[in-house]
Amino acid sequence: MIAIMAGMGKGTRIGLRVAYLGAGFAGWQRQASARSVQGELERSLERVFDRPVTIVGAGRTDAGVHADGQVAHLDAPLSIPPAGLARALNACLDSDVRVLHAWHAPPSFDARRSARGKRYRYRLASAGRPLGPWEALRTWQVPHRLDVQAVTAAADLLVGTHDFASFALAGHAGTGRRGTERTISSARVLFGGRRVAVVIEGDGFLRGMVRRIVGALVEVGRSARGLDWMAGLLREPAVGPPAPTAPAHGLTLEKVFY
Amino acid sequence: MIAIMAGMGKGTRIGLRVAYLGAGFAGWQRQASARSVQGELERSLERVFDRPVTIVGAGRTDAGVHADGQVAHLDAPLSIPPAGLARALNACLDSDVRVLHAWHAPPSFDARRSARGKRYRYRLASAGRPLGPWEALRTWQVPHRLDVQAVTAAADLLVGTHDFASFALAGHAGTGRRGTERTISSARVLFGGRRVAVVIEGDGFLRGMVRRIVGALVEVGRSARGLDWMAGLLREPAVGPPAPTAPAHGLTLEKVFY
Repeated sequence: MIAIMAGMGKGTRIGLRVAYLGAGFAGWQRQASARSVQGELERSLERVFDRPVTIVGAGRTDAGVHADGQVAHLDAPLSIPPAGLARALNACLDSDVRVLHAWHAPPSFDARRSARGKRYRYRLASAGRPLGPWEALRTWQVPHRLDVQAVTAAADLLVGTHDFASFALAGHAGTGRRGTERTISSARVLFGGRRVAVVIEGDGFLRGMVRRIVGALVEVGRSARGLDWMAGLLREPAVGPPAPTAPAHGLTLEKVFY
Repeated sequence: MIAIMAGMGKGTRIGLRVAYLGAGFAGWQRQASARSVQGELERSLERVFDRPVTIVGAGRTDAGVHADGQVAHLDAPLSIPPAGLARALNACLDSDVRVLHAWHAPPSFDARRSARGKRYRYRLASAGRPLGPWEALRTWQVPHRLDVQAVTAAADLLVGTHDFASFALAGHAGTGRRGTERTISSARVLFGGRRVAVVIEGDGFLRGMVRRIVGALVEVGRSARGLDWMAGLLREPAVGPPAPTAPAHGLTLEKVFY
């Protein structure tokens, strides 16, 4: 369906920046019987190139989690201008996923392995009137008033290199050299009226980690727990979830750093 | 399904502030065979009160148009605290429509007849990379660069009392005493990078008027038309649409003034 400038040379590695609304997806990762972002992108790539193409994402967002700046790479089997590929993919994709940008990447670029860090944003609204449906699509409305200073102080404790095992989803302890140790370089809490955004940057995140962290921050913010408790979770792994896990729809993968 | 404090006195008039995402609705007005905001609210009211209740909205938004601050009134057949009614309705309603607030209104309050004006916001993005899907839900992405000064100057022409017949949808010329004359009290154009918001306040709007106005502003903004042309449309009714009508999904009814 799309005119492709073939024969211009060998296929090249292409990077993509991708945004999606999480509600309609069982997460990033391709699954046999559920709609996934990777699956939708690969289906569209197959329509564009008329052959199967595999795509590699920087990180596997869970079901319901949004992205403003997911990054992925693929090896194009035919030469195609990246801007043309982005347009062709967007023409095939449903409106809840968009390729924001595409570029020629060096062969050494690997969206997952080359990633040096990520930034997530978690949106909350504290107790009050219901949010409008547009905002509610990606905001967790908590039924509590939140103590600004307590949340900020608890978030400050996260910065640095810690064993985040307390914040990993059960059965998803980290693997590899680093185990469950990760370095958080920044954890900001932005308040605007009832709206709260928790913006966390780090070199990597365990599965469920940001949502577990936000769940714990809310426990501190509503004065159910103190800073000592938060510090304790970072000192030694908790048995079982330390606090209710914040729901997926408040979380957005905002940026991947290379 | 909801415990109602009955017998506390006669039913009273209740005002509602309602927000909705337009995509899933054939507009505000109840229709026999299509999903409408009025229809969804009345269906929920019937579940709460166990009898039919009619709701009157301040204005009939078209299919696809959003609202942050639609206002409506109803006469509750049983006494119920407004906050409880809002909670009960939200429990029945799908997530794309929310009752933001409910209050006791005097019997003389009529959401439609008492309205003294409305504010609409139209969101656009000028040429550039695709928007993320969350923002794209209520933003018109135009494939042109827009001249800030020209759009602002054209919008300034709208302020005042004019015959807006050029901007009415065909077959929907105004009726009643005022005909197609309306007074625009404010027409602001807010630019932030590629994002443009056109915020228009007036004592009333003909059907399709804001979308026709925005369509014309884009013609001026992309230098296809000049300010003389815009001024001419306000001086004498055009035959047929003066410019492509801006799509519904960029438009939000933001506030109703009483």
